[in-house]
Amino acid sequence: MKLEKDSRILIVGLGLIGGSYAKALKKQGFRVTAIDTRPEAIAYALRENIVDEGYTAVKEEAVRSATLVVFALYPKVFTAWIADHQHLLAPGTLLTDVTGVKSCLVYEIQAMLRSDVEYIAAHPMAGREVYGVENSDEKIFCGANYIVVPTEKNTEEAIALCERLGKTLGFARISRLTPEEHDEMIGFVSQLTHVIAVTLMTCCDNTHLVDYTGDSFRDLTRIARINDGMWSELFLLNRPALLRQMDLFLGEFARFRELLDRGDEEGMREKMRLSSARRALFDKK
Amino acid sequence: MKLEKDSRILIVGLGLIGGSYAKALKKQGFRVTAIDTRPEAIAYALRENIVDEGYTAVKEEAVRSATLVVFALYPKVFTAWIADHQHLLAPGTLLTDVTGVKSCLVYEIQAMLRSDVEYIAAHPMAGREVYGVENSDEKIFCGANYIVVPTEKNTEEAIALCERLGKTLGFARISRLTPEEHDEMIGFVSQLTHVIAVTLMTCCDNTHLVDYTGDSFRDLTRIARINDGMWSELFLLNRPALLRQMDLFLGEFARFRELLDRGDEEGMREKMRLSSARRALFDKK
Repeated sequence: MKLEKDSRILIVGLGLIGGSYAKALKKQGFRVTAIDTRPEAIAYALRENIVDEGYTAVKEEAVRSATLVVFALYPKVFTAWIADHQHLLAPGTLLTDVTGVKSCLVYEIQAMLRSDVEYIAAHPMAGREVYGVENSDEKIFCGANYIVVPTEKNTEEAIALCERLGKTLGFARISRLTPEEHDEMIGFVSQLTHVIAVTLMTCCDNTHLVDYTGDSFRDLTRIARINDGMWSELFLLNRPALLRQMDLFLGEFARFRELLDRGDEEGMREKMRLSSARRALFDKK
Repeated sequence: MKLEKDSRILIVGLGLIGGSYAKALKKQGFRVTAIDTRPEAIAYALRENIVDEGYTAVKEEAVRSATLVVFALYPKVFTAWIADHQHLLAPGTLLTDVTGVKSCLVYEIQAMLRSDVEYIAAHPMAGREVYGVENSDEKIFCGANYIVVPTEKNTEEAIALCERLGKTLGFARISRLTPEEHDEMIGFVSQLTHVIAVTLMTCCDNTHLVDYTGDSFRDLTRIARINDGMWSELFLLNRPALLRQMDLFLGEFARFRELLDRGDEEGMREKMRLSSARRALFDKK
């Protein structure tokens, strides 16, 4: 298993992220094949030269000839694909993914997978508020974080290759987390923030506010345009971690409310100074 | 009272916003004087030709010769300035401000003000996470919202002039709200969002997350670098409205938590679709 110019990469699921992977890998000179059930996606990708080959159904020859398969599917579709089609994979094939939740998925797939292929989980921390290969853009990976999520079943060789894939795609920082660490972290930085953004838009009929609002509200609600099918599935698959993170936030929000309610200016200022100091670290990187 | 090229504009408080006003108005050809207690601010502004005249104390001649005075001070300092120095103003002078809270301020100042000058409140919805005239930039007004906040005491002439000032500064949309409408609105779009950003940074020690986070968390916490002195004062002066908006948000957040907790996928998707539809309106403008 190597990531060399003669690697044949198959991308299963040619949406925004799958399409962005295809663009980045094609530009690096790799041969890229894609499978997606949406005919428009495949037609577009072939026309725009984003992939070398594309199919709207699982094509045996395309799967068998791949040395690296990237799954960019919704979690449940991904699991079903492995169950239905793993017999088509060539021995030694490396599988990876882009899925936003891990514990509920990684162990299940590794448990059902043939022993002569290997699945190493990864999560590219990049996205846009628009969907589909038509909006794909490999530049979203530039400066972003890429997380490799190995388990005890993974070989060092596969982990290293997955890290090289992250670098090849253009990610700025490559990290490793366990599935459990990943899910807790993602529950906080990604899922909780989406819940907050959605709640800001649904807690009152605020559509007229566009005439008054400053950048703060725009920034906090940018991600409130949300793919309801995908995100509700991700939330439910990470329910315990997300509920924990929501409760953590709720408790602290209630503490701040209490400080304001009793007019504790110094208490509020202390929170603001801690917040400023912590956030300043983010701006340095 | 007119906003003409021979208007003499005095800016009291030459920080980020006062400095940005000065830059915008100087570029439009107005004669701009500034008063700020910080010697470095005045020295910088004179050196950089941001103002024509600058003083570190209240200079009688500078106040008397002004036809328009813009107050860019913390709320309590603003009120104290009027009490102490309003006798220096020439009859017919128009006063306006940039303060982020209104009901607690506007009626009090209008009640104490001499009857031969007029104060028309305004709120430029623009800012940055950095402070001081050294970081001022008139481009922050471009595309932003400007809100005029008249009361029954204001003349149509003053309201119209204040609106022209907003246009002259480069704001894209000029609106009118009552002080009460303004404070409720600002409690939601600005103050609540700052409480959320601060809470996200203080609810756990998340400084290590910079290695994993995507854009969502960065966007939601950009405003978590916050001037604790100014914002705690603004929060306390708008306490009832901000508490109402926090409770509105809390209630809806708890409802979403309940949907997740009982696995109500369709309920969550409904919230997400409403959120997406509402947020889409913002992107059109």
